Amino acid sequence: MTTIKTKVGIIGGGPSGLLLSQLLDLKGIDSVVLERKSREYVLSRIRAGVLEQGFTDLMREAGVGERMDREGEIHDGVVISDNGVEHRIDLKGLTGGDTVMVYGQTEVTRDLYDAREARGGKVIHDADNVQPHDLTTDAPYLTYEKDGETHRVDCDFIVGADGFHGVSRKSIPADQIREYEKVYPFGWLGILSETKPVNDELIYARSDRGFALCSLRSQVLSRYYVQVPLDDKVEDWSDERFWDELKARLPEDVAARLETGPSIEKSIAPLRSFVCEPMRYGNLFLAGDAAHIVPPTGAKGLNSAASDIYYLYHAMIAYYDEGDASGLDSYSETALRRVWKAQRFSWWMTSMLHQFPDHPEFEQKMQETELDYFLGSEAARITLAENYVGLPF
Amino acid sequence: MTTIKTKVGIIGGGPSGLLLSQLLDLKGIDSVVLERKSREYVLSRIRAGVLEQGFTDLMREAGVGERMDREGEIHDGVVISDNGVEHRIDLKGLTGGDTVMVYGQTEVTRDLYDAREARGGKVIHDADNVQPHDLTTDAPYLTYEKDGETHRVDCDFIVGADGFHGVSRKSIPADQIREYEKVYPFGWLGILSETKPVNDELIYARSDRGFALCSLRSQVLSRYYVQVPLDDKVEDWSDERFWDELKARLPEDVAARLETGPSIEKSIAPLRSFVCEPMRYGNLFLAGDAAHIVPPTGAKGLNSAASDIYYLYHAMIAYYDEGDASGLDSYSETALRRVWKAQRFSWWMTSMLHQFPDHPEFEQKMQETELDYFLGSEAARITLAENYVGLPF
Repeated sequence: MTTIKTKVGIIGGGPSGLLLSQLLDLKGIDSVVLERKSREYVLSRIRAGVLEQGFTDLMREAGVGERMDREGEIHDGVVISDNGVEHRIDLKGLTGGDTVMVYGQTEVTRDLYDAREARGGKVIHDADNVQPHDLTTDAPYLTYEKDGETHRVDCDFIVGADGFHGVSRKSIPADQIREYEKVYPFGWLGILSETKPVNDELIYARSDRGFALCSLRSQVLSRYYVQVPLDDKVEDWSDERFWDELKARLPEDVAARLETGPSIEKSIAPLRSFVCEPMRYGNLFLAGDAAHIVPPTGAKGLNSAASDIYYLYHAMIAYYDEGDASGLDSYSETALRRVWKAQRFSWWMTSMLHQFPDHPEFEQKMQETELDYFLGSEAARITLAENYVGLPF
Repeated sequence: MTTIKTKVGIIGGGPSGLLLSQLLDLKGIDSVVLERKSREYVLSRIRAGVLEQGFTDLMREAGVGERMDREGEIHDGVVISDNGVEHRIDLKGLTGGDTVMVYGQTEVTRDLYDAREARGGKVIHDADNVQPHDLTTDAPYLTYEKDGETHRVDCDFIVGADGFHGVSRKSIPADQIREYEKVYPFGWLGILSETKPVNDELIYARSDRGFALCSLRSQVLSRYYVQVPLDDKVEDWSDERFWDELKARLPEDVAARLETGPSIEKSIAPLRSFVCEPMRYGNLFLAGDAAHIVPPTGAKGLNSAASDIYYLYHAMIAYYDEGDASGLDSYSETALRRVWKAQRFSWWMTSMLHQFPDHPEFEQKMQETELDYFLGSEAARITLAENYVGLPF
């Protein structure tokens, strides 16, 4: 067994783990990132791409904002369509200047990999059977297998940034953790197509036929979604059927100018809200999807992970630079307070914009009225905008 | 059978019917009000007492604002207590000057009776078995029994302002109407006591033990409520038990200064949301509780009735003065749009402030977070305030 020693052992080489590793490195704090999959696999995952200002600021602080600022698109607003009628939410005007950045998660991850490589960061791919040990002691460590051998990483702290299905959360004894979950009675069927996006800004569409979303990765790569029953299969949805259904849920003028083309990716994802409390067990700190999942409406998944990283990063600097452990001690409480607000916003946007086949008629009317009220009141639009661009860290 | 002729036949001698009758009278439009109960009975009903500015303006327009303006209390704010921590919602500051008036519904009704009497208005009490007829013709009429005889009122229009259990809505064929309803899994146990109110402003208290409300009728008459299970009986609740439970749900400093005393009224009321669509059938127009009910959280019941009356009044003036029936034709749609928003606010306040024994844990966390967010964001507090003081007619 080979053993390496570091300060922070990070499980998961997605954007959260890489970002933390990079930020710590710039402050002279050593870390090791263990990733179960290959770099190519990680970079092939298609994920969200709407970044809050707090997230982009953190990317710049990590020295990886250069390509993002050059290629990413600043969005000053989003459009909400209510049964065919478009309402623009002026994010910038309503929040006094805040915006979001559209830049794919894949690109974020690629930039972070490049940055870690440039600084000689330790990112170990294809690390099998990662296991955290001795979490409640001052000497926790990780083991993993690679190339037929077992390896060991000794560290001060372990960060679990290995996603919802990762080993980190599962390493916490069941009686030390409380889980909250809501599974929605529908999924999102999404396609990626090499077509010009139908709109400069995202369109969230509520329709009697179900929710639809027009999103984009770039000016030549569009991402569209429609709400589908949970038991639908991708095979049920030809490209033609997808485009027809999408058009039927959009305002007429948007449908008329929609450029269609062959899908280069097509998949159905379930929608889930999930939070575990607390986000710390001994010297294991959970971050991102390992601790909480949101439905994608409102684009809070990656951004919620970034706020965890922000708090962890500052807590670790205080600990290593000044011997101040208070940030680590309050990490779970601080992070959860913002996590719950992002959960609330995602749940609220999801509830308001989707059709719930099992909801009583009164609840359906409440959701319709909620949207009617929120589109019509300036104060209510501000609440929508301030959550969409991201509440302060 | 005696027959009288009028322009508008109004079923129900509560505040809605009386207010409409008074407003029409001032414009020279004749009406007759039929009330099933005696005046003394109507005035013995204890009801809400938080009036929106739109409602008080309408009372003044009806020439019955004099005592209200002298004896009623202007409230610039309300207090929301979140598990013992008080947060003041500055209604006046947040809305740019709007306030509410605390003046009991009983007093409103008394003032309206006095005004109708002073002008010789036709208000017929103890009218048994009121029945509307020929609603889809140009000559609808009402019949009722009194003193052993059947009487008839011929009119152009009938207004159903006879409450949730009244005959008006029930006269509409079932296939011409759609009803939306939600019954909440708890009730409000309320007491009236001749004690000084514990606070100048209302206190809405969310507590892990359940909701509580500190309200008032005057500086010597307090009204308090606690959320109770639906199957609780008034007999289960001695005054002492009530006061103890109330104190346990309030902030400590409020509980400490609470003045207790014997209850002079004590009752349990269920909470219900209800709306019927449309609010018109032929020449029958529904108004107030006959068409919609809200749970009392947020004090929208009487105020929603007042907005119906506002729209009906203006529609009838346009019809009689200018022969313009467009206001009558759009009455249902116009009134319902505001009704649904008041429904949404009442449902939202109720959902956020009560304990729902049957809610999954995730939903409970959402409600806690909703309150946390709404108390912490200025834009969100404005939405609360603008709804509480009343959306514009």
